[in-house]
Amino acid sequence: MKHIISPLDLSVSELEEVLCLAEEIIKEPKKYSDVCHGKKLATLFYEPSTRTRLSFEAAMLNLGGSVLGFSSADSSSAAKGESVADTIRVISSYADICAMRHPKEGAPMVASKYSRIPVINAGDGGHNHPTQTLTDLLTIKNLKGHLNNLTIGLCGDLKFGRTVHSLINALVRYENVTFIMISPDELKIPAYLREEVLEANHIKFKEVRVLEEVLPDLDLLYMTRVQKERFFNEEDYIRLKDSFILDAKKMELAKKDMLVLHPLPRVNEISTDVDDDPRAVYFKQAEFGVYVRMALIMKLLEVA
Amino acid sequence: MKHIISPLDLSVSELEEVLCLAEEIIKEPKKYSDVCHGKKLATLFYEPSTRTRLSFEAAMLNLGGSVLGFSSADSSSAAKGESVADTIRVISSYADICAMRHPKEGAPMVASKYSRIPVINAGDGGHNHPTQTLTDLLTIKNLKGHLNNLTIGLCGDLKFGRTVHSLINALVRYENVTFIMISPDELKIPAYLREEVLEANHIKFKEVRVLEEVLPDLDLLYMTRVQKERFFNEEDYIRLKDSFILDAKKMELAKKDMLVLHPLPRVNEISTDVDDDPRAVYFKQAEFGVYVRMALIMKLLEVA
Amino acid sequence: MKHIISPLDLSVSELEEVLCLAEEIIKEPKKYSDVCHGKKLATLFYEPSTRTRLSFEAAMLNLGGSVLGFSSADSSSAAKGESVADTIRVISSYADICAMRHPKEGAPMVASKYSRIPVINAGDGGHNHPTQTLTDLLTIKNLKGHLNNLTIGLCGDLKFGRTVHSLINALVRYENVTFIMISPDELKIPAYLREEVLEANHIKFKEVRVLEEVLPDLDLLYMTRVQKERFFNEEDYIRLKDSFILDAKKMELAKKDMLVLHPLPRVNEISTDVDDDPRAVYFKQAEFGVYVRMALIMKLLEVA
Repeated sequence: MKHIISPLDLSVSELEEVLCLAEEIIKEPKKYSDVCHGKKLATLFYEPSTRTRLSFEAAMLNLGGSVLGFSSADSSSAAKGESVADTIRVISSYADICAMRHPKEGAPMVASKYSRIPVINAGDGGHNHPTQTLTDLLTIKNLKGHLNNLTIGLCGDLKFGRTVHSLINALVRYENVTFIMISPDELKIPAYLREEVLEANHIKFKEVRVLEEVLPDLDLLYMTRVQKERFFNEEDYIRLKDSFILDAKKMELAKKDMLVLHPLPRVNEISTDVDDDPRAVYFKQAEFGVYVRMALIMKLLEVA
Repeated sequence: MKHIISPLDLSVSELEEVLCLAEEIIKEPKKYSDVCHGKKLATLFYEPSTRTRLSFEAAMLNLGGSVLGFSSADSSSAAKGESVADTIRVISSYADICAMRHPKEGAPMVASKYSRIPVINAGDGGHNHPTQTLTDLLTIKNLKGHLNNLTIGLCGDLKFGRTVHSLINALVRYENVTFIMISPDELKIPAYLREEVLEANHIKFKEVRVLEEVLPDLDLLYMTRVQKERFFNEEDYIRLKDSFILDAKKMELAKKDMLVLHPLPRVNEISTDVDDDPRAVYFKQAEFGVYVRMALIMKLLEVA
Repeated sequence: MKHIISPLDLSVSELEEVLCLAEEIIKEPKKYSDVCHGKKLATLFYEPSTRTRLSFEAAMLNLGGSVLGFSSADSSSAAKGESVADTIRVISSYADICAMRHPKEGAPMVASKYSRIPVINAGDGGHNHPTQTLTDLLTIKNLKGHLNNLTIGLCGDLKFGRTVHSLINALVRYENVTFIMISPDELKIPAYLREEVLEANHIKFKEVRVLEEVLPDLDLLYMTRVQKERFFNEEDYIRLKDSFILDAKKMELAKKDMLVLHPLPRVNEISTDVDDDPRAVYFKQAEFGVYVRMALIMKLLEVA
C-alpha cells in the first residue's frame, strides 16, 4: 500500500503513469465514471480548505465512489484530545482511502504510519501539498506537451509558498529546466532550496526583483498569493502584497504561448483584466486538479 | 444555459412547466430516481440554512445525483479573500449545477455571470429566494388546483420578509388574485411593492392590523416569522414578535378549505395547536419544496 | 415503525436479530452493498461527534444509500429557534431514516414522537447512546462467542460515562454476568444503577479502587475516558484523570484471552504500549460499530 505525503513519494516514472492516466481521463471521462463504485474517500480537513476538499470530493464522485469526512477541526474528535494516530486507525474502518489536511507539519506522515488505508497529504502547514504539485505538472504537461526544456518564472511569495517549493522539487527531476525567481528580497526562496536543491543539482536559476525585465524569456509564469497568515506583522504585509502584480499591460511583454498558472485562490496578484487572455490557464488548472486527483485515487486504490 | 436568480427569471409558461413536472414527480417519484446519475450539485452556503440546503441535497439525491459543497463561509475560500467570480469559475469544474446562498444581495447574480454551470439563488440577503417561491406556488397549485381567483392573506413581517415579497411578485402574474396584508404598521410591505407592483398592475389589496377580521375571507393564509435578525433593536423585536399569532381558536373563523402556509422555521407565530388541523399544510409545503427543486434541477440540467 | 432511543428499546430477541445480521454482514459485506439503494440517512448532529457521525455515514454508504445532514448546531435551524419537533417533521420529507445527536437529554425521544421516519438516538447528553451499546455487544459476542457467563471489568469514569451505564443495562439481561467496577470514589456508578438495576436484579458485582487486584479475574475490561466536560472544576479533573491507566505492564496480570474495549476517543487512559497486544480490541470495536449500524439501519428500514 502506498501513501502520498510528499510530491517526491512518486518516482518520475510513477508520476508519469499518474499524469498519463489523468490525460486518458480528460479524453474519456465517462469511461471511468464507475471504477470506484462502492469505495469511500474520507476527507479529514483539520484546517478548512474548500477548494482542495471539493476537488477531492469531485474526483471521487466522478469515479462513482462516495465521500465522508469533516471540514474543520472543531467538528472532529481532535477537540476531545484524540491523537492523529488513533483517528486514522478508526477512519481506516470507515473508508478505503483518505485525504488529510492538517495545520501541523508531519501530521499526515504520522497518520500514514498507523493507517490501514492509503493516506494522501492534502496540505500540512507550510510543508507539502503534493496534489497541488501534481495539478501543476499535469497543467504544464498537457498544455505544453512536455516537462523538459522550460524556462519557468516563479513570482510572489517564494519564501513561505509551499506550492512553489514543491513545484521546484518536482521540476528539478526533468531535463534542462531553468528557474527565474521574481520576488522582493524579503520573500526569496529559502536557503536550503537554493543550496540543497538548485545548486546541488546544477540547475540554472536566477533571482530578480522586477517582473517586466524577465517576462519575455518565460515559457510559463507561476504566480502566487502573498498569504497574510504567513506574515509576522500587518505592516510588512501591506507593503509587500501589491508588489509583483500581473496585469494585461505586462502580459504584452510575454511570449505568445507563455502560460500563466496560479494555485488559487487569487486575491489581487493577477489583475482580472488578464482573465480573458488565452494564456491565463489558472482556472483550467483547477479543472486539471480534479483529473489528476481522479488518477491518483485510482492508482492508490489499485483500480487502474 | 439558464440561471435562476429571481423568481421572475421563469416566465409564467416556464414556471408552469416546472410545476407540472413537479406534480409528475409527486405522482411517480421512482421514475425519476436515476435521471441525474453522474451529475453533481454544489451547495455553496456562505450563510447557514439547514432547511434550504438539505432540501436541495435531498432533491439531487432523489434524482440519483450526488452533492458536494460547504455549509458556512468559515470553511470556504471566501475567508482567504477570494471573489465570488473566481469561486464559481472553479466550482464550474467541480459540479454540474450549483445552489448558492449568500448574505450579500446580488452575489448569486454576479456568480451567474462567470459560471459555466447553472446557478440557483438559494437566498441572497433580504433579496430573493426563488425556490421558496416555487415551493409556495407548487403547494398552492397542488392543493387548490390552480393559482387564479384566490384571496390571499399575508401575515407577520411583511417589511423584511423576502418570501412574502417574492410571492407577491410571482402571484400578480395570475388572474384575479386579491391580497390582504396583515401586519403591524411598522412591518407593512415596502412602498415599492405597493406602488410599483400592486398599484401599477391594478391588483386588489388591502392592509389591516387585525387577523381575526379578515380570516373568514381568505382562501389561504401565508404566515411568516418575525425574524430577530431583521430588527434594529431588541425592544422592537420583543414588542412585535407575538403580534399576529395564529391559533386553533382563530382557525375556527376561517373557511373549511383555507390553507395555512409558512416558509418555516416557525417560532411561535403559529401555535402548535394548529398543527393537527388538516388546513395546516406548512409541513407538507416543506415536502413540496423537495419536489419542486427536483423539477428545477432537471429543467436546468436539461434532463427533462 | 420503530425508533431506537434507548438500548432497551430492543428486546433480547430483537437485539439477537440485529447482532446476527451484523455477523452475516461481517462475513459477506458485498451481499449488502446495494440493499439501501435510493434510501437517505439524515445525520442531525446538534453536538459534534465525528466518530459517531462518520460511523453512521460509512454504514449507510456501505449499504448503497446516501447521506445528508449537519454536523453542529450552528449550521442548523435550531439557531433560529426551531423546535426539535418541527425540525424532524421537515426532515421526514428529506430522508428515510435519521440519526440524531443532541446535547439535551430526551431530544431524540421528543423527535421520535413527531417523526414520520425511524429515529436513532446517536447520543443525548449524558443519557443514552444505544448504537455504542450495540457496538459493544457485537464486539463481545463476536470475539467471545456469547454474552453469558462473563466477568466484566468497568474502569474509569463510571459516574458520568453513559456508555458504561447503557452497557450495564444491556448486559444484565444475559445470564450469569458479573460486574467489577473500578473507579475512584468520586466516579462510582450512580445509586439508581446500583439499586434499581444491579441489586434489584440480583446481579453479582463489586466496586474496587485498584485495577491490578482484579485484572486476573476479568474476561473483559471496558475502559472509559475521564471526560473533562463532565467535571465541575479543573482541579478535580487533573487529580483524577490519570487514575486507572492501563498499560502493558498491567496487561501481564490479565488472562490470555481477556478483551480490552474502549468506546474511544482514548486520551491517555490506555497507554499506547497496549495497542499492539492482541487482546486490545478497541480499534476492532470501532469497525464493529459500522457493521452493527448497517444491521440496525436495515432492520429499521425493513430491508432485512
